[in-house]
Amino acid sequence: MKSKIKMKQLHELQEIIGDAVNKLNFPEYPANLYDPITYILSLGGKRMRPALLLMACDLFDGDIEAPISPALAIEVFHNFTLMHDDIMDNAPLRRGRTTVHERWNKNAAILSGDVMLVEGYKLMMQVEDRLLRPILDIFNTTATGVCEGQQLDMEFEELSNVNIDEYLNMIRLKTAVVLGGALKIGALIGGANIKDADLLSGFGENLGLAFQLQDDILDVYGDPEKFGKQVGGDIISNKKTYLLLKSFELADERQTNELNNWIALKQFDNNKKVQAVTAVYNEVNVRQYAEETMQSYADKAFAALDAINLPEAHKQYLRDFADGLLVREN
Amino acid sequence: MKSKIKMKQLHELQEIIGDAVNKLNFPEYPANLYDPITYILSLGGKRMRPALLLMACDLFDGDIEAPISPALAIEVFHNFTLMHDDIMDNAPLRRGRTTVHERWNKNAAILSGDVMLVEGYKLMMQVEDRLLRPILDIFNTTATGVCEGQQLDMEFEELSNVNIDEYLNMIRLKTAVVLGGALKIGALIGGANIKDADLLSGFGENLGLAFQLQDDILDVYGDPEKFGKQVGGDIISNKKTYLLLKSFELADERQTNELNNWIALKQFDNNKKVQAVTAVYNEVNVRQYAEETMQSYADKAFAALDAINLPEAHKQYLRDFADGLLVREN
Repeated sequence: MKSKIKMKQLHELQEIIGDAVNKLNFPEYPANLYDPITYILSLGGKRMRPALLLMACDLFDGDIEAPISPALAIEVFHNFTLMHDDIMDNAPLRRGRTTVHERWNKNAAILSGDVMLVEGYKLMMQVEDRLLRPILDIFNTTATGVCEGQQLDMEFEELSNVNIDEYLNMIRLKTAVVLGGALKIGALIGGANIKDADLLSGFGENLGLAFQLQDDILDVYGDPEKFGKQVGGDIISNKKTYLLLKSFELADERQTNELNNWIALKQFDNNKKVQAVTAVYNEVNVRQYAEETMQSYADKAFAALDAINLPEAHKQYLRDFADGLLVREN
Repeated sequence: MKSKIKMKQLHELQEIIGDAVNKLNFPEYPANLYDPITYILSLGGKRMRPALLLMACDLFDGDIEAPISPALAIEVFHNFTLMHDDIMDNAPLRRGRTTVHERWNKNAAILSGDVMLVEGYKLMMQVEDRLLRPILDIFNTTATGVCEGQQLDMEFEELSNVNIDEYLNMIRLKTAVVLGGALKIGALIGGANIKDADLLSGFGENLGLAFQLQDDILDVYGDPEKFGKQVGGDIISNKKTYLLLKSFELADERQTNELNNWIALKQFDNNKKVQAVTAVYNEVNVRQYAEETMQSYADKAFAALDAINLPEAHKQYLRDFADGLLVREN
């Protein structure tokens, strides 16, 4: 395979998607059905999933125009899940703006989301006939995975204990599967064979898992200036992260009680709670477990990448991309 | 085209669908995602839409096994719309049993419905490769139409006036389009050319409109013993039927006030309201308009049927089927 002089950079791909999203035209009538779609898509976001789809096509030297509609399908699908998730979470804001169910109403958000999923299928079907079935199969699997992941996420919030394997399976379904699916679809459109497309999908899925674990770690151990979020936000909100769940596995009776007491408290000083929970995390050495697990997923991602039949320069591009995502902060 | 000795009867097709629905297997995990699907499908119903899909295939002498998965797709899709409609309508019961959002909760009903739509696509894809794109295009159009119809139905409930064309467009989208779509998909699987499939779709869509108008008429003028419903149920609940909307178009000032007064009353004697509103309906002669409009759709349905290239015996089967639906009661 002949290597291109230069792969498109991520920000270029994101711009292509941003422009294409702006050009999407949904029917004008009924306005309350279609306006919420245009609205939620206009709220921005990093357009990472569709950009990855384009990137995968570019990696195999595919024409960058061909995967634009399927990439939009992934973005429309992702925003459909956000629209419905926001109803389920009673979220007032999305990217700093009023959520659809607040700005319109819950029924409009349910129904707009439904038709948005159908619009996703319409966009995903804009592929060559020979790819229609394999690509829709991937899209179906991805969509099913995301719904299963969201269901598990909601259930886990209500459970007092969730084991690590269940948690890892949940984040795989909820966030990693769609990254793998986007890359696989892009690769097939770019002309990859099914083996390489599967390897690239494995790269994306494992990278997604590593990234999600990094997110859990950075919440507690990240540099707040680099990370841009309040340290310990997950601790304050009792979010069931890898750190919390693994700590419960590792904790002795006193440490278990300490964690449970802080979780049960309705009123508390944020800093004191973060300090106290972090102290338990440190005692049980959970950061090391988390980083090892994260590293094992990163290793799997890089192993899949090594096995793909691609020019070395293109693999290096993906390695650099992965390294950019997995910043090691202290 | 050689005619079969005998077409399958509607009740036989409904039984085939009923058996196939019972054999549908969804994943066991997460239970709260998939159990609602099995539950709502188990509540029964006439299975009319999937039976029509099989009937269309049978009409063109197609193998009756081939369309079973797509027919299930139509039934799964229909039940997905019911699951979400029940949330939007705050309905406690569906076919006399607890609705999904009441038995589980609203979030489970939203998410189960979402994955159900994806399951519908999976089932619809179980067709020959050459039919995959045309059939999914029909399915997409059908699904979009149903969402648009549901949105308009919700909006019309809040409006003080809706014109007749808007109303007819709404019932076409909400109920008739899926009948046309089911017949078209079945016809294509049965080997019909696109022209005949379109004609059969037109037959179904117009028959669906006629049937819906008949429903509006029978609510007021039907024999309660034959009809099996309370006479005037639509009047009692202020439902915006053809009769009510057309009466507003035809009414003079006194009649308009009479209708508006009854609609505004919070407490009333059911019989008196039904009598008074029916009296206005009779004064403006709305039944005749409704029956003429209904007949015009029936005529369109039969004209489409006449133009289809099918053995006369098969057309007669469809005419008998349509006559069975459009019972003329007095």
